[in-house]
Amino acid sequence: MSTTGFYWHERCFWHDLGAIGVFSAPGEFLQPQAASESPESKRRLKNILEVSGLIDELRVVKPPAATLDDLLRFHSPRYLDQLQAGDKARGGNGGDCAPYMPGSWAAATHSTGLAIAAVEAVAQGEVSNAYALCRPPGHHAEADQGRGFCLLGNIPLAVMRARALGQVKRVAILDWDVHHGNGQQAAFYGEPDVLTLSIHQAANYPLETGSFDEQGEGAGLGANLNLPLPPGCGLGAYAYAMEKLVLPALEAFKPELIVVACGYDACAKDPLGKMLLNSQAFATMTGQLKALAERCCEGKLVFIHEGGYSEGYVPLCVRGDPNSGG
Amino acid sequence: MSTTGFYWHERCFWHDLGAIGVFSAPGEFLQPQAASESPESKRRLKNILEVSGLIDELRVVKPPAATLDDLLRFHSPRYLDQLQAGDKARGGNGGDCAPYMPGSWAAATHSTGLAIAAVEAVAQGEVSNAYALCRPPGHHAEADQGRGFCLLGNIPLAVMRARALGQVKRVAILDWDVHHGNGQQAAFYGEPDVLTLSIHQAANYPLETGSFDEQGEGAGLGANLNLPLPPGCGLGAYAYAMEKLVLPALEAFKPELIVVACGYDACAKDPLGKMLLNSQAFATMTGQLKALAERCCEGKLVFIHEGGYSEGYVPLCVRGDPNSGG
Amino acid sequence: MSTTGFYWHERCFWHDLGAIGVFSAPGEFLQPQAASESPESKRRLKNILEVSGLIDELRVVKPPAATLDDLLRFHSPRYLDQLQAGDKARGGNGGDCAPYMPGSWAAATHSTGLAIAAVEAVAQGEVSNAYALCRPPGHHAEADQGRGFCLLGNIPLAVMRARALGQVKRVAILDWDVHHGNGQQAAFYGEPDVLTLSIHQAANYPLETGSFDEQGEGAGLGANLNLPLPPGCGLGAYAYAMEKLVLPALEAFKPELIVVACGYDACAKDPLGKMLLNSQAFATMTGQLKALAERCCEGKLVFIHEGGYSEGYVPLCVRGDPNSGG
Amino acid sequence: MSTTGFYWHERCFWHDLGAIGVFSAPGEFLQPQAASESPESKRRLKNILEVSGLIDELRVVKPPAATLDDLLRFHSPRYLDQLQAGDKARGGNGGDCAPYMPGSWAAATHSTGLAIAAVEAVAQGEVSNAYALCRPPGHHAEADQGRGFCLLGNIPLAVMRARALGQVKRVAILDWDVHHGNGQQAAFYGEPDVLTLSIHQAANYPLETGSFDEQGEGAGLGANLNLPLPPGCGLGAYAYAMEKLVLPALEAFKPELIVVACGYDACAKDPLGKMLLNSQAFATMTGQLKALAERCCEGKLVFIHEGGYSEGYVPLCVRGDPNSGG
Repeated sequence: MSTTGFYWHERCFWHDLGAIGVFSAPGEFLQPQAASESPESKRRLKNILEVSGLIDELRVVKPPAATLDDLLRFHSPRYLDQLQAGDKARGGNGGDCAPYMPGSWAAATHSTGLAIAAVEAVAQGEVSNAYALCRPPGHHAEADQGRGFCLLGNIPLAVMRARALGQVKRVAILDWDVHHGNGQQAAFYGEPDVLTLSIHQAANYPLETGSFDEQGEGAGLGANLNLPLPPGCGLGAYAYAMEKLVLPALEAFKPELIVVACGYDACAKDPLGKMLLNSQAFATMTGQLKALAERCCEGKLVFIHEGGYSEGYVPLCVRGDPNSGG
Repeated sequence: MSTTGFYWHERCFWHDLGAIGVFSAPGEFLQPQAASESPESKRRLKNILEVSGLIDELRVVKPPAATLDDLLRFHSPRYLDQLQAGDKARGGNGGDCAPYMPGSWAAATHSTGLAIAAVEAVAQGEVSNAYALCRPPGHHAEADQGRGFCLLGNIPLAVMRARALGQVKRVAILDWDVHHGNGQQAAFYGEPDVLTLSIHQAANYPLETGSFDEQGEGAGLGANLNLPLPPGCGLGAYAYAMEKLVLPALEAFKPELIVVACGYDACAKDPLGKMLLNSQAFATMTGQLKALAERCCEGKLVFIHEGGYSEGYVPLCVRGDPNSGG
Repeated sequence: MSTTGFYWHERCFWHDLGAIGVFSAPGEFLQPQAASESPESKRRLKNILEVSGLIDELRVVKPPAATLDDLLRFHSPRYLDQLQAGDKARGGNGGDCAPYMPGSWAAATHSTGLAIAAVEAVAQGEVSNAYALCRPPGHHAEADQGRGFCLLGNIPLAVMRARALGQVKRVAILDWDVHHGNGQQAAFYGEPDVLTLSIHQAANYPLETGSFDEQGEGAGLGANLNLPLPPGCGLGAYAYAMEKLVLPALEAFKPELIVVACGYDACAKDPLGKMLLNSQAFATMTGQLKALAERCCEGKLVFIHEGGYSEGYVPLCVRGDPNSGG
Repeated sequence: MSTTGFYWHERCFWHDLGAIGVFSAPGEFLQPQAASESPESKRRLKNILEVSGLIDELRVVKPPAATLDDLLRFHSPRYLDQLQAGDKARGGNGGDCAPYMPGSWAAATHSTGLAIAAVEAVAQGEVSNAYALCRPPGHHAEADQGRGFCLLGNIPLAVMRARALGQVKRVAILDWDVHHGNGQQAAFYGEPDVLTLSIHQAANYPLETGSFDEQGEGAGLGANLNLPLPPGCGLGAYAYAMEKLVLPALEAFKPELIVVACGYDACAKDPLGKMLLNSQAFATMTGQLKALAERCCEGKLVFIHEGGYSEGYVPLCVRGDPNSGG
């Protein structure tokens, strides 16, 4: 019987950015307003699991924070020192739109700890598949700096660790957050055994990366696929991209485990994305992935939360019967 | 010398909808959350006028609330009775997504009062042009019910009154809110002397109206123009629509006064719209309209606030020099 | 070994009162503002249990909602009908400052469900003692109406049920919320086998009850004790009252189980109370009660959350060693 | 005819402290929460002036920010450099519970600018009396550091400037904020021509000062009066203190102008004060002061806002007829 792990830690919610002007410089003509990344949408996802009763069917795990040794697999000592120092001071900016405050170090290392534990448990067969409610998000974080509210590279760190410990060799990472998954792309750009795919809104943040031309380099050439979609796409465009490109690429790669960088900001109500998905769209895509994973990698599927609007978007079908579309 | 009137009343902000589930039914699986229409974005617009100092160049007017006689020009006695009764009880729903609470009657009649005073002042030449910071919005309100957070039809009421009092005869209404301006369309669908235009996101709320086919009826045939744009449009699409269709239609109509149903929810950060405008786009469109108004109707231009995200979107150019593009 | 039960349900937090003017009539000169009773302080208490790790030492239980049969032991059918009907409409007011909204019925019946389960489990020895994080609160609720944010009488309902089912006979209820516990007093005013004590701020809400003169009636004479303290009292006054009056009265009564109506609004930062307690004071009082319960009723102690400010006030000592003062 | 000036600047509200733990150290067990000092209570006071229509009877003035030369009359260059530098960085702490952020320098210098303009206008007879809605507050600020949310000493700076410019010589300052007005006391402790009085809650913040024994020093001996009241005092205690001590002391001093450090945190709903005043109490005290000012200093009375809860507390009687108790 299938078991789904749910990885969660309250500490991840104790990271409050205050009135930060992220896209406009604060100053003369910008009235202070709350940062667009906040604990609330993540807490709501946890809450609806509780109220719906779904959480009682999941194996809830509260793993420890990532260790410094874990973090050094991807991040530079300089950057980690900066984050830790800022945590003791009044915070700082990890690079490009990556503010941190006292408490953020604990939240970020716990966020990575969730991803690490989820990937390890699925790789080792302790659970069939898993969802990690990470916060802060990670898919924009780079080796030497944070970006776009991401402080630590949750997915690269979890995948690098599992590979280093011999738990898994070939991993595919699909990023369907509305923004390009530059962090995973950079982390594995020359690595042939990790396939990175990103389906995102073209010409949204981050502007420098995410084009179809970026296909990996050296031995990794061909192991990176970007699908930038124009703003205004709905389920039709996503379903087409999934069927024609994403699923075939995943299947051809023959991964032992699939990781999803799961942002919900391609949904119709997200303020920073201009796509039109609804909860049924996310359920459909999850069902497609689940069926594929059953066929090609014993169902080993890990969702890493990246953020975005979520009014009741629960990946119910991660536990569903692929034949029923559930 | 040109004078711009700014019509505003604090009472309009004392209308708090609480935790209303507007697009999803509240109940089993919807955690309470604040309604998407709130005083904050309107207050921010007023605040930036203050901090920038622009307000010192405007003629600030605090007009009285609309009277029942004013309201009866467009709304049914039944609907007005309902609103007033609900105000004394615990509130209610004015029809389709139009919640009201104790205090909403005062806010709504003051909101209409702003529109009435602004249109009258411009029609009679007391000010050159005007901006009315109305709230609640009005462009979805129908004769017998409220819709989409709109309780009273601010623009139909103001235009009907000015025409009834002989202050103006031919009026053009341009609605660039991201949602279709169904209220003005319905109010003047058979009226040849009021041109209603709406440029909006196709297949967004309200779903039933807004197609290009709706062009008026009877004597009003040809005096209604809908331009539904696909989601994902930016300044290019808007500029093209303005130049090729909106501005020529306005000029051909030869209005004595132009009213703009000014929602900012076609901007790139609005959660309920999926367009890509920025503040420069609104400034450009305002400049175009201002130049047109100078040519065809002595500059008589009235902006009626409809809502939507506004992080510093100030219609500065309503006072600018049309020659400088300001 | 001692086991502490923690009774909690996310549904209790899905009860949002919106902008309610409770102490001043909403209207002309009261700007809407959030009700003073909100989910946040209760959620914070749950959150700190998670982050501190204390929750891992508790037996966390998520019991079902109370049934109508349970509720009819204390409340009138008329009042329960009103609550249920309002839940399907747009809410209403349960009596005196007791607003409810869609969703409130589920929250309230779950709140009572927590109290019922906690009292039953302690009475039957399933756990040594228990904390029920109830919301909405209950100690002001009367048989035929809600009062002071309280919709259902959580404690009377739980105690009446346990007594009706023969789980316990003699119960003592100590209410240290800063407001008088009028609900328990009224429920058991003529009942000699239930001792009700309330230590509260004199001349605070509710104004009509809470004087020392109210001592029970008929067979229940002597089984009600009110200790109204003047505003401005700190730990000294509370410790004196506990030592000289509360603890001796409890001990003399020889209860089989002690229930605490545990509001934190006598703390120094609560806006509606004017007392000066801090978290150490609550820890001290809890330690005293725990030691007493060990001596006189096998440690059977149940805390029912009533509300009030809580910045990290965790009743840690409910699990502590009474000898260590923990 | 009497004219009341109202000094206000929107910029003062653009100072957002974010999730600051002021009384508990942020860290392991303190979930982030908004600072207790926020723009909202000040904005509400402005809003009710608008909605009530009272603002139309006031002379509304929007003065410039204080200059560096103004600030150097009381503050050290070191401290001012720190504030300015922090404003360009990510903020900092001005000393003891005095956080500042980007934007705080502008807010604080405008706050002082309001106090300066109000005192000058009353001193020179441009208006009869005045209310300055200052924020951040100032009465705890010291020469070399900020304290208790106060960044700049609004009252000392305004009084020192008016005296330096020869606009006034003898000034009395009455501080009825619930916390001791240590800033004015320190600024004028040796100055015989400035009487400083403070009526406050004993043993509240700041703990080091505020006792009756502190009566001034050197030439200033006798020109400082502290009246620490026990927590729990209501109008009776305040009225007694006013009649027996405050008013006689003010009258005996023969000031040319009276400044009130007007915090509302002695009101019954303030979370950080434990007093029991209501709006009628503030109206009564204001009426008493107004009558006194008429008798002894041509009605020259300036209110400087210090903060605290305000649900509709409008100092209406500052304009009232002293004979009518208004």
